[in-house]
Amino acid sequence: MISPLRFEDGTLLVLDQTRLPGEEVWLGCTTPGEVADAIGRLAVRGAPAIGVAAAYGLVLADRDDFEAAAELLAAARPTAVNLRWAVDQVRAAGPDRALEAAREIEERERDATRRIAEHGATLFGPDEQVLTHCNTGALATAGSVTALGVIEAAWRNGAVAHVWVDETRPLKQRSRLTAWELERAGIPFKVVTDSSAGLLMSRGLVDRVVVGADRIAANGDVANKIGTYALAVLAHHHDVPFIVAAPTSTIDADTPTGAGIPIEERDPGEVTPHGHPAANYAFDITPAELVTAIVTEEGVRHA
Amino acid sequence: MISPLRFEDGTLLVLDQTRLPGEEVWLGCTTPGEVADAIGRLAVRGAPAIGVAAAYGLVLADRDDFEAAAELLAAARPTAVNLRWAVDQVRAAGPDRALEAAREIEERERDATRRIAEHGATLFGPDEQVLTHCNTGALATAGSVTALGVIEAAWRNGAVAHVWVDETRPLKQRSRLTAWELERAGIPFKVVTDSSAGLLMSRGLVDRVVVGADRIAANGDVANKIGTYALAVLAHHHDVPFIVAAPTSTIDADTPTGAGIPIEERDPGEVTPHGHPAANYAFDITPAELVTAIVTEEGVRHA
Repeated sequence: MISPLRFEDGTLLVLDQTRLPGEEVWLGCTTPGEVADAIGRLAVRGAPAIGVAAAYGLVLADRDDFEAAAELLAAARPTAVNLRWAVDQVRAAGPDRALEAAREIEERERDATRRIAEHGATLFGPDEQVLTHCNTGALATAGSVTALGVIEAAWRNGAVAHVWVDETRPLKQRSRLTAWELERAGIPFKVVTDSSAGLLMSRGLVDRVVVGADRIAANGDVANKIGTYALAVLAHHHDVPFIVAAPTSTIDADTPTGAGIPIEERDPGEVTPHGHPAANYAFDITPAELVTAIVTEEGVRHA
Repeated sequence: MISPLRFEDGTLLVLDQTRLPGEEVWLGCTTPGEVADAIGRLAVRGAPAIGVAAAYGLVLADRDDFEAAAELLAAARPTAVNLRWAVDQVRAAGPDRALEAAREIEERERDATRRIAEHGATLFGPDEQVLTHCNTGALATAGSVTALGVIEAAWRNGAVAHVWVDETRPLKQRSRLTAWELERAGIPFKVVTDSSAGLLMSRGLVDRVVVGADRIAANGDVANKIGTYALAVLAHHHDVPFIVAAPTSTIDADTPTGAGIPIEERDPGEVTPHGHPAANYAFDITPAELVTAIVTEEGVRHA
């Protein structure tokens, strides 16, 4: 299992996911600003991983710059709630205990996602065809896994026959990372365009959808990569179970419903490099009533 | 209005849509094989346009090769029914009257799609936000228009405020062509990823979906570009009218339901140039019950 983050000798090493799978380039970050920049430009991504990266980012702050660095890191991306959660943990620990707090967060995320995989795998019947969206594997989660971890654990139990990997536009990086991780694990898969899920479901080729989450509101509404909501509506229409796998650190008790979750809009140039006007929403909200079950490290919560 | 096809002096000139909008390159086809190749590799695309191209392609056949050329052209792509319809018209006319038959087909398609636009525009309320998928403008239709023609006619009536243009993976060529055509017409638009429709609808930003069709079965099931079915399910979920605009030549009375329409699978390399396994379905089927209205040159048929 590859980990995208290592903290060594006062440097946070970040595996640059914008260069994978072609090149394995590690960025050495020595300031909070460098870590915030790596998060903002998606060199490190996936809600659990950016939380851990931000925690170590705050460890790198000068003592007299600690509070400002915490704000900078917490604001690096707006949608994932565990980014702010992780920063707040380290801030509360203070400069002297920051490294210890960051290590605790990393360990907690690693342990949580291992247990998510175990709980999630119990949901599967034999030989299922599974569809997943975005990248939720080891790269997204500081060395552990959420949706992809569930799929891998179920596959080891003989419960997964095949995985459909959504391309996940606009960056496609995500499908390449998921494909790269599935290939390393030996799990059969095919990449499909984001538009293919409807046809696959109408032909009975999808037994289960498994996705991660960037933030879950108190009522169970799920913010995740753009396109997740359309998959949930299609799954509902076809009576296909729709499973969300995420650590409890993504649950935001202070946000009552999905309506309160900010949706990041990214550079339109990611969609239309040729200069046509474009809108590039990074996430959408799936209402709780369309989610069959949420799997956390604490167990399976059915809707 | 730009036309992607011209027949002059025994040569079918095809505007190569794989090079647009960057370059305006015209291919000169002088044999049925060259026309079939241009259709197969999407230099010319859109159901009406490939029908007209194939009709002229058969005009180019040697007299003693007429029947074989008809078969070759009819098989150039499997999903669009008016491809075979157009070839059958010219075949029935025979070598001596082939050119006349092809010109009739071109004129008929041009006239039909002009009337489709007029009929379709009557459906719109004021200042609508419209979402469209794939390219259905002049380039797809031998100089006339289906879905994009409806949108343009409604816009001239003051009934369209803004158009969301689906990127339409895998080739994206389609969104670039639609954007290029909307820009030339002065209609405000933004390109979005195919995954964005759910979020846009949940925010009330889509008043109507308008798409074309590659084939319509006798019961009203619609085959169109992959992703159309997911849009129809989302539109149904959000009570957004879902309009199909297509000439009657796309209606296939011999195919009772969508289940009988073959779905073309194209080169997986269009999806994953980096060699991961992929499935590249080009079309999907939208069941009649999800279609609010079908607009043909004969009028508006409500479901």
